[in-house]
Amino acid sequence: MTPFLQLVFSLMIIITAAKAGGWLAVRLRQPAVLGELLVGVLLGPSLLDLLHWPLLANPAEPHLLTEAIYELAELGVVCLMFLAGLEVDVREMRRTGRVAMFAGVSGVIVPLALGALVVLPFGYRGQAALFVGMILTATSVSISAQTLLELGVLRSREGIALLGAAVVDDVLVILLLSIFVAVASSAAGAGAILLVFVRMLLYLGLAVAAAFLVLPRLADWIDDEPISEGLTALVLVVTLGFAWSAEVGGGLAAITGAFIAGLGFGRSRLRTAINRSMHTITYALLVPIFFVSIGLKTNARLLDGPGLLLALVLIIIAVITKVLGGGLGARLGGFANRSALRVGVGMISRGEVGLIVAGVGVNAGLIKTELFSIVTLIVLVTTLVTPPLLRQVFTTKETSHA
Amino acid sequence: MTPFLQLVFSLMIIITAAKAGGWLAVRLRQPAVLGELLVGVLLGPSLLDLLHWPLLANPAEPHLLTEAIYELAELGVVCLMFLAGLEVDVREMRRTGRVAMFAGVSGVIVPLALGALVVLPFGYRGQAALFVGMILTATSVSISAQTLLELGVLRSREGIALLGAAVVDDVLVILLLSIFVAVASSAAGAGAILLVFVRMLLYLGLAVAAAFLVLPRLADWIDDEPISEGLTALVLVVTLGFAWSAEVGGGLAAITGAFIAGLGFGRSRLRTAINRSMHTITYALLVPIFFVSIGLKTNARLLDGPGLLLALVLIIIAVITKVLGGGLGARLGGFANRSALRVGVGMISRGEVGLIVAGVGVNAGLIKTELFSIVTLIVLVTTLVTPPLLRQVFTTKETSHA
Repeated sequence: MTPFLQLVFSLMIIITAAKAGGWLAVRLRQPAVLGELLVGVLLGPSLLDLLHWPLLANPAEPHLLTEAIYELAELGVVCLMFLAGLEVDVREMRRTGRVAMFAGVSGVIVPLALGALVVLPFGYRGQAALFVGMILTATSVSISAQTLLELGVLRSREGIALLGAAVVDDVLVILLLSIFVAVASSAAGAGAILLVFVRMLLYLGLAVAAAFLVLPRLADWIDDEPISEGLTALVLVVTLGFAWSAEVGGGLAAITGAFIAGLGFGRSRLRTAINRSMHTITYALLVPIFFVSIGLKTNARLLDGPGLLLALVLIIIAVITKVLGGGLGARLGGFANRSALRVGVGMISRGEVGLIVAGVGVNAGLIKTELFSIVTLIVLVTTLVTPPLLRQVFTTKETSHA
Repeated sequence: MTPFLQLVFSLMIIITAAKAGGWLAVRLRQPAVLGELLVGVLLGPSLLDLLHWPLLANPAEPHLLTEAIYELAELGVVCLMFLAGLEVDVREMRRTGRVAMFAGVSGVIVPLALGALVVLPFGYRGQAALFVGMILTATSVSISAQTLLELGVLRSREGIALLGAAVVDDVLVILLLSIFVAVASSAAGAGAILLVFVRMLLYLGLAVAAAFLVLPRLADWIDDEPISEGLTALVLVVTLGFAWSAEVGGGLAAITGAFIAGLGFGRSRLRTAINRSMHTITYALLVPIFFVSIGLKTNARLLDGPGLLLALVLIIIAVITKVLGGGLGARLGGFANRSALRVGVGMISRGEVGLIVAGVGVNAGLIKTELFSIVTLIVLVTTLVTPPLLRQVFTTKETSHA
């Protein structure tokens, strides 16, 4: 087969498998992401090892197909973070107010700190330990939102606070990751780090200003011009541009730029149209590739004794720290114990952002590839336990002091 | 820069350039495709040589970026041919009837025959000569349709016949190309060619049956299932599957399979929704890459004396044979001279399908890469001359004997 036919064949298998896995999971009353990830693990070196089938071998350029798949997956990550930015509603954030802010901040700090602490005995030190903590910070609220929707309580006080906390969480994770990547990639001296900070802040300031001031107008303008799919092409190009410049110009992660582009277009009156077309490109083509590529990079067979122990410890820490951190924050923000617990439990599930952060860490050489398989496990387990736990805390009668 | 950032950067430049070129062309009252192709030529080795900028160099794997771009462009070609199939309306074809059928068939045969004849003195023989003829067969009706729309005569008798002829043309070109690729890739003996034909017919029969019977139902089914962007993902996967199996199973070109998948989904009641999302993916992301990639493969500097002469001859033949072939067919179908001329002139413009056919020929080793630059020229010139010629023949008063 020609390299192109090999790509066509792999994409066919990958997208089919991801969607079929998601479909099966939903049919079994589980979150779709669970099935999509598991299917990826099955297709990966853990079992079927798709990318090394003889059919897909290319002796002349052995990495061509793998690279093409991984780059499409990365494009998917960039588009995902763009959509995350697009969904941030600054007004809604203000409305959910104090509780969301406290729960979001505390729900990031507690996993970060405890995560970094518990990996010290496993040989992770300094930046690497902090980065493992980073991986545990990002809440994936979609699974909780879906569950609350089924229970009919998504628009309850706790539901709204949870959605708000997830937004605070997203913004905070992006900021922390930006600082992290910027500092980690610099030389050690205090002067160098200062320079890195200045560069980062300069980029963030310029990018956010450009995104908020220019992008909505640009969208308005191009929508009236005679260009086929002009608006979507503009959004794609701008997102790529922000992603590229974040890394090359700001020394940050590409996803930071994509997220900021999303924030900017989120203020456009064309937001709904932008969301529709980017959602199609992202979820029909690129995200299935991303989810499966996670599995393709995960080798369950390589998880030896210490690796499994570390995975177990991190999973427990991942669950506990979100309940504690998110719950404590909601309590400080003014919620009663029962409501605070509900918010905390709603923040347990981790998803694509945790995987994305881990990917950034592996690419930057901060953490070992081994950790990638562990993060996949964390995402799988937290995704699995969140819906039943949420149902539990939401259907239990409120106690009198709540 | 990492390979991923290089891809992001190139896509940013390519999509921006294509859309800007198209926009500028439209502003100058020219067809968009003209600007998109010209911009590609500027970005290619003829002038700027984008893919060889030092910024995009990758000493470890020098072909990675080029291959990724070309494979995305090929995906664009597959999606384009899918959309072409989706647009074929079997009922409308019946309605436009005789004239369309005659004009379509004659508009394919005349360029094929004369094109193959005139390249004989240039050293093209047998299959290669016939293939050059093949390149001249595919009408791109969108430019004529756009012009007729502006003149307010798209729904005239001639306009409808022209649209119908273009459909006949499309189907015929796909069929001829299928036969061609199937035969060319086989051994010389009569027995072998017979086998190739049997295989081709078997595949075409099975694929068309599957497309017409199964795909509309599959679309109905998946649309009700809880899968994010399930319908679009299904369409993508099926299109890739048909493209892949056409080449691997039927010994045909991948685009034949994509076209058949389009025919099948065209009979679904979800056709409009399918068209919308595939149009977005195709025209916002993949087609701009395809148009620019044409330019990236075209090196105007390599066109020497004989090459330029061949280009000139083929351009003249391309224009004359469509006017003659299409016009004669329309006349035989029952149109008066003036109306027949209008149909013939409307069929002059060549577009993406000519380029796609040329690409298939180069990949199969049937024609030299040199011809690729010539085809780009043919497309540019025929695209340029069609709108003014059409305006001319449509605004001239009908003579009494018409």
